[in-house]
Amino acid sequence: MQGICLLGATGSIGQSTLDIIAQHPDKFVLINASANESVDKMAAICRRFKPQRVVMGSKKARDELAQQCADLTTSFEWGERALESIASDSAVDQVMAAIMGFAGLKPTLAGIRAGKRTLLANKESLVTAGKLFMDEVVRHNVTLLPIDSEHNAIYQSLPQTASGAHKQDVSKVILTASGGPFRTWSMEDMLAVTPEQACKHPNWSMGQKISIDSASLMNKGLELIEACWLFDVTPDEVDVVVHPESIVHSMVSYRDGSVIAQMGNPDMKIPIAYGMSWPNRVETNVAPLSLVDIACLNFESPDLVRFPNLRLAADAWFMGGTAMAVLNATNEIAVAAFLNRQIGFLDIAKLNEQVLTSANITAVSTLDDVFEADTYARRFAQDLISRGGFS
Amino acid sequence: MQGICLLGATGSIGQSTLDIIAQHPDKFVLINASANESVDKMAAICRRFKPQRVVMGSKKARDELAQQCADLTTSFEWGERALESIASDSAVDQVMAAIMGFAGLKPTLAGIRAGKRTLLANKESLVTAGKLFMDEVVRHNVTLLPIDSEHNAIYQSLPQTASGAHKQDVSKVILTASGGPFRTWSMEDMLAVTPEQACKHPNWSMGQKISIDSASLMNKGLELIEACWLFDVTPDEVDVVVHPESIVHSMVSYRDGSVIAQMGNPDMKIPIAYGMSWPNRVETNVAPLSLVDIACLNFESPDLVRFPNLRLAADAWFMGGTAMAVLNATNEIAVAAFLNRQIGFLDIAKLNEQVLTSANITAVSTLDDVFEADTYARRFAQDLISRGGFS
Repeated sequence: MQGICLLGATGSIGQSTLDIIAQHPDKFVLINASANESVDKMAAICRRFKPQRVVMGSKKARDELAQQCADLTTSFEWGERALESIASDSAVDQVMAAIMGFAGLKPTLAGIRAGKRTLLANKESLVTAGKLFMDEVVRHNVTLLPIDSEHNAIYQSLPQTASGAHKQDVSKVILTASGGPFRTWSMEDMLAVTPEQACKHPNWSMGQKISIDSASLMNKGLELIEACWLFDVTPDEVDVVVHPESIVHSMVSYRDGSVIAQMGNPDMKIPIAYGMSWPNRVETNVAPLSLVDIACLNFESPDLVRFPNLRLAADAWFMGGTAMAVLNATNEIAVAAFLNRQIGFLDIAKLNEQVLTSANITAVSTLDDVFEADTYARRFAQDLISRGGFS
Repeated sequence: MQGICLLGATGSIGQSTLDIIAQHPDKFVLINASANESVDKMAAICRRFKPQRVVMGSKKARDELAQQCADLTTSFEWGERALESIASDSAVDQVMAAIMGFAGLKPTLAGIRAGKRTLLANKESLVTAGKLFMDEVVRHNVTLLPIDSEHNAIYQSLPQTASGAHKQDVSKVILTASGGPFRTWSMEDMLAVTPEQACKHPNWSMGQKISIDSASLMNKGLELIEACWLFDVTPDEVDVVVHPESIVHSMVSYRDGSVIAQMGNPDMKIPIAYGMSWPNRVETNVAPLSLVDIACLNFESPDLVRFPNLRLAADAWFMGGTAMAVLNATNEIAVAAFLNRQIGFLDIAKLNEQVLTSANITAVSTLDDVFEADTYARRFAQDLISRGGFS
């Protein structure tokens, strides 16, 4: 029986994780959970799964939830310290790190430092603080299982040896990308796209921020950086291939000419269940893949002219230090500005490029360096937007 | 350094095996080799690789070869007993079993009984004597690595645990089939096809017999039976999917909804090198797979009306006993008759069906039972052809 701490219980990854727990009550139990402000959703989770401890993002949300669930024995807490505490709780075996954005970093690290198996659905931890993060994983001898469908596919396609002794056999990591809703659009057409259009992902049902990132290929750029940290490779060892059907979730190419791929219907319950049950597998209620029904899988090269974010991510990796944190922070500001209709869709990549190339990039020795770079880049980007000063 | 005994050195699998040995002289050495009658080819192999012992199919071929290579220290032998002897030789670590047809069974078993790692490129061993064969593999604790591209792909897509503890996680084995040159032909069109047309495989360059079997889908039927023995499944647990590009070599579907696939350019050097270097991998000179260049992978259901051999193979599995040996022997006779223009292309499956459904099927306790069934079915089939008595 595995005790789960679910960080980010009310988001889409959180909901899928709860589905797997509910499907296998003999194998998994929800010990602790967190959400930011979704009181009603969390109240329903508390009634159904009866966790020991729940952390909300604010005192107000905690108080409302505590009132709604006054009849339960669950302990209701709030704030960053409480998040770190539920992740490192002795009753917890696995931490599902599904808090989106930069806020997910500290509680995820708390779980790692406590030696918990870590299921990583938070991109920003690796993107902004990859080196520090992986150093902690190694230091605490933690099993780190990526939950992003692409990285989970790569993990499944790599040799399953704890020692990593077969790394010499790997020639390339092949990251697939759906290409997003504007895959076939011209630059001119993309000039005028609305947030509503950009949020319509062809294959995956996801939150707003990640949908925009998918449309701008920044999501793939962030995944490229993640893949480099997770699998100890450089951007030169990662090929990005556009695969509009999102059936082949990613691949690994070997020096003998073999390519191992993980496929499946696009449903996050597959990588989530894989992470939770590894090294075994459990049933999910996802329909088995029928390649005959799908009939055709297409592959093409990404267009780095129309989608410069992918190139920027590789640049940031090679720049090193705070460059990846700067790119990530800038992109968060840019996406928010796009959603607020302050800037156009193509301005997202323009802003990212301008900040990345003109910002002060420094070395990363501590988490504080990352946080400072994050704050600095957000201000820098916000300032450029306010002044309309980028092109 | 792995010492190789190469049974069937002058065929296409043999040549590819020699290519891998030549590419990695620090890892592999040709100890022993065999061929049937190809004296000139074998003489060239002897000069290049300087094996210790070579076995030919007849005294005449042995004598000619010995004369051509009188200056070498290689020992030249002939016949079935000598074949068994070179496979079980103490200087040998691995036996590449690449003798095609029923003749490959006994020397392959000799290697297994001597505990040699066995690289199995011979279909008939498993098809005709699967149960006995696998019993010997288990008894002698032998590492059996399938070299057929499909079974090698399945092997690569299964969990790499010696214990097989994860078998419960596997839901289906998915065997891919190119569909052969007549994939889109009507029954009427197939009535008049010539041996020359049937030998033109769209993706693989192979011998005549296996090319005809690919065109009639009997090859896939034999592979279905092989897969059942190799991976301890029944035909109900194997899906056959037609995939005309022959890039996805086969797949395994898991209970969580994941499908793991092995892909690559269609070149036998990939599975051969995999078997030779397992559990590591070595470079081959096969071009890396470019899915972008291939652009599209297609999948469709096999048509069991136009290609009944696939159904007959599953029937034979469920009939058990000598049924698979009977089907295999009948098919060898039918293909030979087709190549001799005695019967038409569609008559191959007709003959197979008639013999399978009317022959006397018995239990298999010893190899002699298999050999008797083989002889019996050949006579039965030959008789039907001579009398023109099948329809």
